[in-house]
Amino acid sequence: MHTADTKASLTPALVFEMLQAHQRSAALKAAIDLDVFRAVGQGPGDVASIARHCKASERGIRVLCDFLTIHGILEKKDGRYHHSAASAAFLDPSSPSSVASIAQFMYSPSIREPFDRLADIVRSGRTVLPGSGTVEPENPVWVQFAETMAPMMAPMAAPLGKVVLNGSTSSMRVLDIAAGHGLFGIEIAKQNPQARVTGLDWAPVLRVALDNARKAGVAERYDMLPGSAFDVDFGGPYDAVLLTNFLHHFDQPTCVGLLKKVHKALRSGGQVATLEFVPNEDRVSPPVPAAFALVMLATTASGDAYTLSELTTMYMQAGFKDMTAHPIPMSPHTVVTGRA
Amino acid sequence: MHTADTKASLTPALVFEMLQAHQRSAALKAAIDLDVFRAVGQGPGDVASIARHCKASERGIRVLCDFLTIHGILEKKDGRYHHSAASAAFLDPSSPSSVASIAQFMYSPSIREPFDRLADIVRSGRTVLPGSGTVEPENPVWVQFAETMAPMMAPMAAPLGKVVLNGSTSSMRVLDIAAGHGLFGIEIAKQNPQARVTGLDWAPVLRVALDNARKAGVAERYDMLPGSAFDVDFGGPYDAVLLTNFLHHFDQPTCVGLLKKVHKALRSGGQVATLEFVPNEDRVSPPVPAAFALVMLATTASGDAYTLSELTTMYMQAGFKDMTAHPIPMSPHTVVTGRA
Repeated sequence: MHTADTKASLTPALVFEMLQAHQRSAALKAAIDLDVFRAVGQGPGDVASIARHCKASERGIRVLCDFLTIHGILEKKDGRYHHSAASAAFLDPSSPSSVASIAQFMYSPSIREPFDRLADIVRSGRTVLPGSGTVEPENPVWVQFAETMAPMMAPMAAPLGKVVLNGSTSSMRVLDIAAGHGLFGIEIAKQNPQARVTGLDWAPVLRVALDNARKAGVAERYDMLPGSAFDVDFGGPYDAVLLTNFLHHFDQPTCVGLLKKVHKALRSGGQVATLEFVPNEDRVSPPVPAAFALVMLATTASGDAYTLSELTTMYMQAGFKDMTAHPIPMSPHTVVTGRA
Repeated sequence: MHTADTKASLTPALVFEMLQAHQRSAALKAAIDLDVFRAVGQGPGDVASIARHCKASERGIRVLCDFLTIHGILEKKDGRYHHSAASAAFLDPSSPSSVASIAQFMYSPSIREPFDRLADIVRSGRTVLPGSGTVEPENPVWVQFAETMAPMMAPMAAPLGKVVLNGSTSSMRVLDIAAGHGLFGIEIAKQNPQARVTGLDWAPVLRVALDNARKAGVAERYDMLPGSAFDVDFGGPYDAVLLTNFLHHFDQPTCVGLLKKVHKALRSGGQVATLEFVPNEDRVSPPVPAAFALVMLATTASGDAYTLSELTTMYMQAGFKDMTAHPIPMSPHTVVTGRA
């Protein structure tokens, strides 16, 4: 993504940089765990006071904060560290828009360690994790996802809710499959006071969703359906079914099977809405959705980042019609809807 | 380094990207280990033929090659993968300028794994590796360094040789401390047929240096001094001493002690020459030399990327004078010399 200069001068700098890129992830995770960003926000930003706050060595703090400055996360002036606009907004725990907690999921051993064996994964074409990888039943990584990824997903909830509701304030029933933190279904309940939402996920995950529903004041319209989306009876009929960040974990026949089950649980004319990383047909753009395929290769048995034509085909095979795609502005996500 | 756009629009994309940066290192290492770049160079570049060459799954190869394309390493057209200028020059094993072998050192477990415990390292201010970290006596990582990092260091050898020789073709004796692959001393012997070079390193490493001296046709003027630079008698007097990629592993008092020993082994007016990552006094620029401090924090007890004023001060404390700095063009390295 950032290689034009490097290639123009044709040095091996790109190779060198890429082999060391892992250090950037480790540095950001360490700084979050050490509470560096709160210390920087509180000031005065000299090495000694940050080290005191973080209960860390001055040598370590100096080198870490320099590294974060080099990579655009912090700023340094006259030997003191200050927030960049990005770290002030997204990494200081005192910021309401902080997303620092996502490091606990995105850099968790379950997600990260398969990459240590990526050559084996490419050879076999599937994760080195046992069974179905991260989507094995009751995998605790999804509790962590629910608990930590909400700040990253929250900005997607309002646009998704608008697409699904399309201005409707009439009574409706909504099923949120793989609810996780629950934010998507909760947002529907917030936008439409006549909506009743059923969150489906493994029981330990649903506890996080219910907690969020309580905080949002919609718990009395939030029902829980614990279990696997492939096994439990959905009930219904529903006016809408949300399938967020879920299809990418499975192969196409599995997705079509699930979509058929969703179709049966919808009233005629009811709507299914996925939130997905949707790469272009070339599978190498836009960078973030396209690169997500590697995460699915590394952590699942047969998942993928599906293109719009693949998603549309799966929807059609499951009986859906009137498919529409809604890219969410300022995000790498796309909402794809279909009607039963 | 690549954050201007991201910060201007103020999304958490930088945080997201940075937490996933480790995937880029893993992908490049996997592609090198699977021989993807030879396969791409041989063509025709479709997924099936690359997968056959690499004895890997088509799913895995497709996702890996897409990922490498997204990150500017490969190019993709009509579903086929082709070399970028950078991968053709630096990653295809059939290219004489290939540096692919450096992945075996730079992404080796000894260098990489400390980063998994970076918060602990920042707390304590030193590597989690036992003892002195990578500079523990006889650490096998230096055999790997000598065997694999030569392609990365080779372009630095000729400019370093020119600085040290300054046109001289008269008889001279040169000591190459921490010789490693031996390329720097060997280059002196190649540029000056009257030069006799002594390579100092641990014995298993010197075997690599001697092999390279043989290949360069200078073995009869290449002597070996096996052992630790801190323990062995240097002999001498020498006309020049090379200290390449070495001082950064140690704290300043240790460096000064070693430099005093070097000073004693030089004839009056003889020259010491280091090759180092030398950050500016702000310690956050240029990016590559400045970021190297984190590698020293993670893998040594008390090393650092020293600024020019720190290096100059250490030289002075050891009795050197007439210090000069020579940045090597198109590289992140600087040669710093002093006279005894």
